[in-house]
Amino acid sequence: MIKALAAFEPRGKLRPFEYDPGELGHDEVEIDVHYCGICHSDVSVLDNEWGHTQYPVVAGHEIVGTISKVGAMVTKFKVDQVVGLGWNKGFCNECTPCNTGDKNLCRDAKKTILGNHGGFSEKVRAQANSVITIPEGIDLESAGPLFCAGISVFNPLVQFNIHPTHKVAVIGIGGLGHLALQYFKAWGCEVTAFTSSEFKKQEALSLGAHHTIDSRDLSQVENAKPEFDFILSTVNVKLDWNAYISMLKPHGRLHFVGATLDPIDINVFPMIMGQYTVSGSPGGSISTIAEMLEFTKRHNIKPTIEKYGFHEIDEAIDRVRSGDARYRVVLCR
Amino acid sequence: MIKALAAFEPRGKLRPFEYDPGELGHDEVEIDVHYCGICHSDVSVLDNEWGHTQYPVVAGHEIVGTISKVGAMVTKFKVDQVVGLGWNKGFCNECTPCNTGDKNLCRDAKKTILGNHGGFSEKVRAQANSVITIPEGIDLESAGPLFCAGISVFNPLVQFNIHPTHKVAVIGIGGLGHLALQYFKAWGCEVTAFTSSEFKKQEALSLGAHHTIDSRDLSQVENAKPEFDFILSTVNVKLDWNAYISMLKPHGRLHFVGATLDPIDINVFPMIMGQYTVSGSPGGSISTIAEMLEFTKRHNIKPTIEKYGFHEIDEAIDRVRSGDARYRVVLCR
Repeated sequence: MIKALAAFEPRGKLRPFEYDPGELGHDEVEIDVHYCGICHSDVSVLDNEWGHTQYPVVAGHEIVGTISKVGAMVTKFKVDQVVGLGWNKGFCNECTPCNTGDKNLCRDAKKTILGNHGGFSEKVRAQANSVITIPEGIDLESAGPLFCAGISVFNPLVQFNIHPTHKVAVIGIGGLGHLALQYFKAWGCEVTAFTSSEFKKQEALSLGAHHTIDSRDLSQVENAKPEFDFILSTVNVKLDWNAYISMLKPHGRLHFVGATLDPIDINVFPMIMGQYTVSGSPGGSISTIAEMLEFTKRHNIKPTIEKYGFHEIDEAIDRVRSGDARYRVVLCR
Repeated sequence: MIKALAAFEPRGKLRPFEYDPGELGHDEVEIDVHYCGICHSDVSVLDNEWGHTQYPVVAGHEIVGTISKVGAMVTKFKVDQVVGLGWNKGFCNECTPCNTGDKNLCRDAKKTILGNHGGFSEKVRAQANSVITIPEGIDLESAGPLFCAGISVFNPLVQFNIHPTHKVAVIGIGGLGHLALQYFKAWGCEVTAFTSSEFKKQEALSLGAHHTIDSRDLSQVENAKPEFDFILSTVNVKLDWNAYISMLKPHGRLHFVGATLDPIDINVFPMIMGQYTVSGSPGGSISTIAEMLEFTKRHNIKPTIEKYGFHEIDEAIDRVRSGDARYRVVLCR
């Protein structure tokens, strides 16, 4: 039996929960969970905001731990190896995305916390090809958020061919945005942070932004006439997206990794005249995560975290729910 | 003096109008207009639908003719050479798009019919680097529409790396769509046409579509579960864009060349999960137009046109205004 902490109802306190994972699959590994980040999407699932949570639910998909068991067919991992696990814990391994290096876009991917039990637990199981070795030199305590927040903002740099010569901007300086600023700076770009808070303006500059723009003061935008190759939105609220598009260079891209629930109402005519692109993406493939980890280590990039024990999980979740965490919350064994 | 046909008010009849073009610029050519297509955007400008028409206005930006005068610095053209001219008749030649092969995205481009006098005229002038030689073998009578409708639908194939292995679809079988079907078929793709008319369904098949889907019958879509790499919208009306996005493969693109005036309200969550892209583009660069002309010739692609004399211009414009033209209207000398 695996001992976990589960929610039994929306916004309910988490309670101990045991489940029988059955025999270890030939292609699976079992991981002893040492650290687990709490992402806003964990809260969305715990609270059934997306409408398809099945209770009891064990959330947690920013997992750092060590291999404790290895399936019969698995050659890539050994017991005690230090690994990470993110949004997906398995793939169909047969579809076109799986066959072309885009397993993260597999429509039959097994989600770590949707229909499966995640990392708020002593142990978690996953297909070996969804698990990744963490290179030595990465701080393990703060590594969990790399496997969801980190890869979500790093992946677009790879996918959309962002160059170090580009001018890029980040909307929203939170769990995702504070990592985006670090990655974009290390990528060599000129980085602007859009934020409405004076405190976060100073934080943004210290995290790597060259410039900040107060997103509540559009006159700054009018005066600055900024021109961006790439604008990344990490927020989940409705903004004036057409105003952001008007700040793009020809060929520019407004990209969403924050799951805003209101539809984005884009004007087509300017999009045609500037050859603009609006797009979205989820986390990345295993090989992009591996690239991210190497890059993270080389450039000393690190999530800023608040630490809680697993026994403080309700308090930790409330911290994420409040939106006040600076900037990610991690459960530590 | 150049003798033209101008509108003096929205929806007014065109009347003879003479203007003095001044001295020919060193970098300009003058073209004797033999044929001029009528595009829906000509009607939009004649009728001041976009709000910045200055009357009197000489529309017409699908121009086929012969060089009649050559500016002092122009070496590329000789008198009597057969050429085409489209949406732009000049560029700043200094900005980044101009310097990187994307003059069509120059923000200071001189529009052929906005603030300048276009092709409903005996002659038209243009910067030589906006004018293109028409290769022998292209039917001149029907060539005009290539310089706006044709390049608008051909350009995305080049810009967005569409492969012959891709499954592509066209929304709207009209002036742009009937050319898109021919280009996409010749590109080697599997081509689907979305159309709501039984007549156009048959036309679409004869123009190159492998499949058609009745866009008013979503049950066909439900059953077919089509998966497209690329969907091109050529219409200027509001449709259920999220339904079209749901038919994209992972990495797929919904692309707009039709200037729908209603904002497109896109749901972000599916866009993130499928790594989808929504984008728009105007016509193409001179070099892409040259590629298009070669491709057009090699694959015997031809706009289907209705012919009118320049003296029948009001009737011809009404034909475009009605939306009933099959599929483009061309004025012939």
